[in-house]
Amino acid sequence: MKALIVHAHPEPLSLNSALKDIAVTTLQKAGHEVQVSDLYAMRWKSGIDAEDFGLATTGRLDVAHDSGRAYETDALSADIATEQAKLLWADTVIFQFPLWWYSMPAILKGWVDRVFTYRFAYGVGEHTETKYGDRYGDGTLAGKRAMLSVTIGGKESHYTDRGINGPVDDLLFPIHHGILYYPGMEVLPPFVMYGTSRVSDGDFADAAKAWEQRLLTLEATDPIPFRRQNGGDYEMPSLRLHEGLESPGSAGFGLHVRG
Amino acid sequence: MKALIVHAHPEPLSLNSALKDIAVTTLQKAGHEVQVSDLYAMRWKSGIDAEDFGLATTGRLDVAHDSGRAYETDALSADIATEQAKLLWADTVIFQFPLWWYSMPAILKGWVDRVFTYRFAYGVGEHTETKYGDRYGDGTLAGKRAMLSVTIGGKESHYTDRGINGPVDDLLFPIHHGILYYPGMEVLPPFVMYGTSRVSDGDFADAAKAWEQRLLTLEATDPIPFRRQNGGDYEMPSLRLHEGLESPGSAGFGLHVRG
Repeated sequence: MKALIVHAHPEPLSLNSALKDIAVTTLQKAGHEVQVSDLYAMRWKSGIDAEDFGLATTGRLDVAHDSGRAYETDALSADIATEQAKLLWADTVIFQFPLWWYSMPAILKGWVDRVFTYRFAYGVGEHTETKYGDRYGDGTLAGKRAMLSVTIGGKESHYTDRGINGPVDDLLFPIHHGILYYPGMEVLPPFVMYGTSRVSDGDFADAAKAWEQRLLTLEATDPIPFRRQNGGDYEMPSLRLHEGLESPGSAGFGLHVRG
Repeated sequence: MKALIVHAHPEPLSLNSALKDIAVTTLQKAGHEVQVSDLYAMRWKSGIDAEDFGLATTGRLDVAHDSGRAYETDALSADIATEQAKLLWADTVIFQFPLWWYSMPAILKGWVDRVFTYRFAYGVGEHTETKYGDRYGDGTLAGKRAMLSVTIGGKESHYTDRGINGPVDDLLFPIHHGILYYPGMEVLPPFVMYGTSRVSDGDFADAAKAWEQRLLTLEATDPIPFRRQNGGDYEMPSLRLHEGLESPGSAGFGLHVRG
């Protein structure tokens, strides 16, 4: 396995950094190759701007068009090109982060916004009335696997089906489906640790053990069965799910997971 | 009306910047006071770190604890304190941004991550077995109203109930409910413009007119009827919605909107 770990926490002594360290050690001991993108340590730049695409800042920036042109002409800034190369190298990508305001920290969103350029992660393949690109199961990163490892300060019951924050699977859907599955990666069920505002030594030992177990069984873990865009389940050109395909009672994001 | 507009696009000649300019002009002409936080122009810092809280970088950073202590002792970095003051000044907060990877641009997430500190936006009020804080309808920003103005490159049908990207209301729920309603703001239905990869002059004129209309009717617009955490709809301490309160067929995020 060639694993890329993308890590987003400012504190090297944090729980998140400890979980990242466990991933590195566990995977390396099991004989796998590991690269780490420690975004805070790298002082990762979060905001897309004209400098990312080798442009003078005087022109009118068109993020999609200019990022695609820079990708195709090897004019992307070096930090972005390096991360794209790591993604192409890896067969497995693990994201370690705390859930902040029900999504990823800004620095990790900035990694996605800047590295997932047009022509690399979106705007790939034929876009016509009968086909709308290689995405959601197809794309540049097809054949690779991704997994989130997320720490959540609050209580697990708040994130259940009827919980006040919304179900954790729905909160993570825009990342799982919209960011990772979109450019083609299969997405494994996340490793989620709750109640991380207060973690006892015993809690940490239990979590560390569970995390190691997940890491050592990665290759045997089935991905979330999202529906492939180009697998016949969607009407064209509306890309609405054909009537009758869903499991009884499913709705919203759940429609896009095979029953 | 005292309106704060938080704007997140790197290009002053972009559609998003044009919509921001329309908001400023329209509201000022109607006699309202307007402040703008133009995050790219301000070179807003996205990543939380120890420097935000006046800390030496040698200690162990605890984001919640340290941000709360800095808030309570007026030790937050000046850029954060300024934005908190703008929020306290405003009665209406408008967010203008492009939907990137099904969420807000990193620079705007960085505004939320850094400005919405512990004790200001979360960790407010009594946390016991019978009450879990002033949030979701109560909190520091209660009595204010918020609205998103979002541009989306893709097609509207892809964002409908059965659309492949998921329903736009669900994609925006973590922002509407998890970020804006959480510290107490009422949230108005969003202004969403689709198909913004290609916008003709006619499309723009139509959108500008619709946007002006939304702005001029802001004060008469009903908010999304999210359920108040402390209004009796949730079991304690699980904070799961009581059985039987939901509209028939509603599930997931939709449970937390009154029928």
